[in-house]
Amino acid sequence: MNSNSAVEQLPALRILLSVPDAEFDSFFPASTMAALQELGCVTTVEPAALQSPQTFATAAGDAEIAITAWAFPRLDAEHLAMAPKLRCVLHAASSVHFLVSEDFWDAGIPISQAGAAMAPAVAELSLTFTLALLRRIERLDHGLRSGATWEEARNVRRAREISGARIGVVGASRTGRRYIEACLALGADVSIYDPYLAADDPLAALSTTLEALFVESDIVAVHAPDTPETRGLIGKQQLALLKDGTALVNTARSTLLDMDALYAEVSSGRIDAALDVFDDEPLPADDPWRSLPNALITPHIAGATVDSRRRAGLIVVDELRRFLAGQPLEHALTRTDLERMG
Amino acid sequence: MNSNSAVEQLPALRILLSVPDAEFDSFFPASTMAALQELGCVTTVEPAALQSPQTFATAAGDAEIAITAWAFPRLDAEHLAMAPKLRCVLHAASSVHFLVSEDFWDAGIPISQAGAAMAPAVAELSLTFTLALLRRIERLDHGLRSGATWEEARNVRRAREISGARIGVVGASRTGRRYIEACLALGADVSIYDPYLAADDPLAALSTTLEALFVESDIVAVHAPDTPETRGLIGKQQLALLKDGTALVNTARSTLLDMDALYAEVSSGRIDAALDVFDDEPLPADDPWRSLPNALITPHIAGATVDSRRRAGLIVVDELRRFLAGQPLEHALTRTDLERMG
Repeated sequence: MNSNSAVEQLPALRILLSVPDAEFDSFFPASTMAALQELGCVTTVEPAALQSPQTFATAAGDAEIAITAWAFPRLDAEHLAMAPKLRCVLHAASSVHFLVSEDFWDAGIPISQAGAAMAPAVAELSLTFTLALLRRIERLDHGLRSGATWEEARNVRRAREISGARIGVVGASRTGRRYIEACLALGADVSIYDPYLAADDPLAALSTTLEALFVESDIVAVHAPDTPETRGLIGKQQLALLKDGTALVNTARSTLLDMDALYAEVSSGRIDAALDVFDDEPLPADDPWRSLPNALITPHIAGATVDSRRRAGLIVVDELRRFLAGQPLEHALTRTDLERMG
Repeated sequence: MNSNSAVEQLPALRILLSVPDAEFDSFFPASTMAALQELGCVTTVEPAALQSPQTFATAAGDAEIAITAWAFPRLDAEHLAMAPKLRCVLHAASSVHFLVSEDFWDAGIPISQAGAAMAPAVAELSLTFTLALLRRIERLDHGLRSGATWEEARNVRRAREISGARIGVVGASRTGRRYIEACLALGADVSIYDPYLAADDPLAALSTTLEALFVESDIVAVHAPDTPETRGLIGKQQLALLKDGTALVNTARSTLLDMDALYAEVSSGRIDAALDVFDDEPLPADDPWRSLPNALITPHIAGATVDSRRRAGLIVVDELRRFLAGQPLEHALTRTDLERMG
């Protein structure tokens, strides 16, 4: 934009960086930004400012690399035509369903996502939920806050320690594996339902059926991707198999469960739940999940930590280095991957 | 009491077992009870039934071993005179302050306590609180439950993962050490304030001053015993050193802190807290701690898990075996110990 000598020394590569302002410093703190700027000329534009074709065409017209997070316009034929030089898309967040289109795949532009950055954060929230439910913190804290006497508040089923607790994990995904690792390290007795678990996988020995997992577990934690195949995987029938006083943890997607069936079981008090994901997001003000004394709820923040954002920015920079060096992207996504991944 | 041959085969040792009915099966499930009955003739009496001198004299008159938990009468000169054959006290819980007296120590009766059984449970609640506060679950859950919009509820300081978080531990007690071990295993950067930490202790390298610990930590966890020396250790001055957005975890005793000073800092929103212990227990119905959105509170249940109760019963049986074999008690307490321990 200006013509001083510093700018003239920049490489020719044009990078369009479009991450919401509120998250910008988390993803791209000064050190990550400096590393990115060594690789090209970075233009930063809020995704909100790219929603009209005119602004998109201006910002994307000479972009060779697009770095995206949320709310970037869908890369359909119309938008691709306005970004004729686009050679690579590096998505700093996880799901790219909203971003890609059949036209995008047909164009053969490589895309990579930074979901790996979130796995430790999601797994850790799931672990936190697990420990909290084993200790009945949802009932104890909510009880004391709602005016129960000390003795009334204490009158909950006796707490369990994680060591020796039976934890059933639905989905040995990247996140599921991190969660399983932490649970095993803390002494839990883990079983896994995952039809894609290979026989020679080190976790295969923990494999069980969905039915046995629900019958035997003290805690069931959901870590499966959201695919047509997994939608509604856990319904009334599975939930009915849970023993009284057990609990369900979901930091993945609500679509994996029949949420009405789950609500029926939790509101009856038979089981407890800790949930980061819901069918209706944002959760309406009068949503009944907001008032269950035996549910712990958070507003879909499992992947959002200082640490995961920083890792995501670094993954993007590393991927760009690989792309420029002609190496394969470490976190590349294909049309086929997308059918399997959330 | 009856005279069938099975009873006549029992050894002569008379064991008075007095654990509250509500906790009996937790401490002494069938397998533990069977092991205990192999060592002597066990008479079980609710502590509530021992409060009058008459009932105590009847139950304790021939007891050689007393197994206690809560609410057992104080072993003063009067009660010791009514239990003339008492040779050993095995306390299935932690604190024995309520139980022992100068007369008891003077009588030279050995006493052992099962606090070791609780350390993993207390450490695990402290870990759970730590993870919950790093992830801001207290604010997120309470926000959604109090009618905040999704976006309002999400508007909290960005969460931290435990890996790389700076955790300051006040007191390398038995419980503190379990907690430190778990935090280190999960990648935390731990520092410790404990004036009794020996220079050759493996944890000595993590030692710091109380001031530095409060200045640098993201989470401060209290694990010191309640002694005259530690009372009020953490006051207004220390709390003021905490960075904005940090949090304090207490599963030890409230007397270690100036709770009014802590309330002032937490109610201002500058720091958060997770507390299992309070100055007023039972916590009154209108206690202001019950309504702080940025505090997680539980009714002094840190040591109370299925697992810790079972371990305590087993410790008692093991101690009795040692006592009968003339071996030293593994968890013996002396008058001097009591001055150092909580």
